[in-house]
Amino acid sequence: MLDEIQLLYLLDLFGVGVFAISGALAAGRKSLDLLGVVIIAVVTAVGGGTTRDLLLDRHPVFWIADPLYLSVIIIAALLTIWYTRHKEPPQKFLLLADALGLAVFTITGAQITQTVVSNDVIIVIMAAITGTVGGLIRDVLSNEIPLIMQRDIYATAALAGATAYLLLQLTGWASSLVIILSMGIVIGLRLAAIQWNLHLPRFKLEE
Amino acid sequence: MLDEIQLLYLLDLFGVGVFAISGALAAGRKSLDLLGVVIIAVVTAVGGGTTRDLLLDRHPVFWIADPLYLSVIIIAALLTIWYTRHKEPPQKFLLLADALGLAVFTITGAQITQTVVSNDVIIVIMAAITGTVGGLIRDVLSNEIPLIMQRDIYATAALAGATAYLLLQLTGWASSLVIILSMGIVIGLRLAAIQWNLHLPRFKLEE
Amino acid sequence: MLDEIQLLYLLDLFGVGVFAISGALAAGRKSLDLLGVVIIAVVTAVGGGTTRDLLLDRHPVFWIADPLYLSVIIIAALLTIWYTRHKEPPQKFLLLADALGLAVFTITGAQITQTVVSNDVIIVIMAAITGTVGGLIRDVLSNEIPLIMQRDIYATAALAGATAYLLLQLTGWASSLVIILSMGIVIGLRLAAIQWNLHLPRFKLEE
Repeated sequence: MLDEIQLLYLLDLFGVGVFAISGALAAGRKSLDLLGVVIIAVVTAVGGGTTRDLLLDRHPVFWIADPLYLSVIIIAALLTIWYTRHKEPPQKFLLLADALGLAVFTITGAQITQTVVSNDVIIVIMAAITGTVGGLIRDVLSNEIPLIMQRDIYATAALAGATAYLLLQLTGWASSLVIILSMGIVIGLRLAAIQWNLHLPRFKLEE
Repeated sequence: MLDEIQLLYLLDLFGVGVFAISGALAAGRKSLDLLGVVIIAVVTAVGGGTTRDLLLDRHPVFWIADPLYLSVIIIAALLTIWYTRHKEPPQKFLLLADALGLAVFTITGAQITQTVVSNDVIIVIMAAITGTVGGLIRDVLSNEIPLIMQRDIYATAALAGATAYLLLQLTGWASSLVIILSMGIVIGLRLAAIQWNLHLPRFKLEE
Repeated sequence: MLDEIQLLYLLDLFGVGVFAISGALAAGRKSLDLLGVVIIAVVTAVGGGTTRDLLLDRHPVFWIADPLYLSVIIIAALLTIWYTRHKEPPQKFLLLADALGLAVFTITGAQITQTVVSNDVIIVIMAAITGTVGGLIRDVLSNEIPLIMQRDIYATAALAGATAYLLLQLTGWASSLVIILSMGIVIGLRLAAIQWNLHLPRFKLEE
């Protein structure tokens, strides 16, 4: 049976694969060349964890330390390109996978940060950075206002999940349960926001 | 009475608060959600110092080392959102505060860099990076050409102030006087540029 | 006679100069002020190597360790501004110089990475990052979709050249020959792509 570390590693690999798919699909709307699509997929998948590692001075950066991440990303991007030549991308599956990727990155980001930093606010912020910065860089490279700043409950779900993760640790429950519950909060908030079109109030200055 | 280090710390906290306000107001023109506004405010306020710390390999990065910075930023952003729901933002006050923030970050950036690097050109550039990169990232995230590259005497004021700071140190005057004078140069140049619409010549290629 | 390290250093200085020119010309199309042009030139010239150094935790970053780089960049940018006030920029010369800059940065990037990392995939990617990220940041700051993701065989040439560099090292040939051959592959691919309008297939999703 998998122990906790192996489970998280597998989830993390799943997370980079999912974000690579989301990056490749976003790039497909911009009419880039094949390598451009792969570049966007890589940046989307590793951007959050890389930013976290640089800010925390964790070296080697995770995908330099373990090149399997890059292999998963490149294969996922190429499969996405190949698949979408023949069929419509399954929107609902993608939204679910994206929510799962956000949940995985947020909670693994919180765990990794906890090994270096003790301040809870910093841990929550680093968790959200791990979960969201890849998508943010994807949007900047695609010359769009980053979705995380406009979209229904995206960074919010990451912040809530990371906060729940820290609070649930206080209960003394098994850490695998804490991980599953806090990932569930991210996924649940994200999917509820999509289903019922929930969003934070907008802030709009009159001009 | 405050000693020099305490004074600079207070000024630095003031600087992040001011830039958080400027980030929140910029975000307000883009119709983001509340969390998006806070994210832009945080990035605007910490972007310059974070870039400086990463380039100089200063760890922990300043806002990770001292979370009070984040508290000030988040409170400043929320107060900005609350205030502008009821009243017009006071443009003149904001321009003055922004100039003061630029001055504070530039000179504290020069001081911090001096503790690590001895080359004067590098010190001046790191000072300007500390003062301007937050606003630059704010503009990139808002999908605009960064203002510092088009606006009347912005990065120029930072470069001039940092250069003055290094030159004034040669006089042997009290360091608090040197700090005040060089911050005054940044503020003076910036306000003069706004008042009389001064700017560097533009460079425009025929096509 | 120059030894290999001196030759690479001179080539590297040549590379930053060339990319500074390309950055200044790109900025000239955006009607920035003089300092804005110099900033874009600096970022274009040092962006790739700086990203590589941060990811690999190589400190001090190359242009902080050796300020001659900045001098070359600033002089190249100012000369570009001065020259283009009087004459058309020579397009063909610039494309050739840009290809040479890409080749130099890619191969020196591979060499530097080899001193820190042993995984070949990481070395190739770091080489491509060194060669291309400066131009990518230039495009983001100019508010455009980065050219490397759309243009005919640009990042592709860097990846091919870095791969050739690693393979040619296995032959046991003199390292100066390996360097020249692999730089030749980057330049040849790039110029062939321009001459015959070669490009990778585009990936475009139906919407």
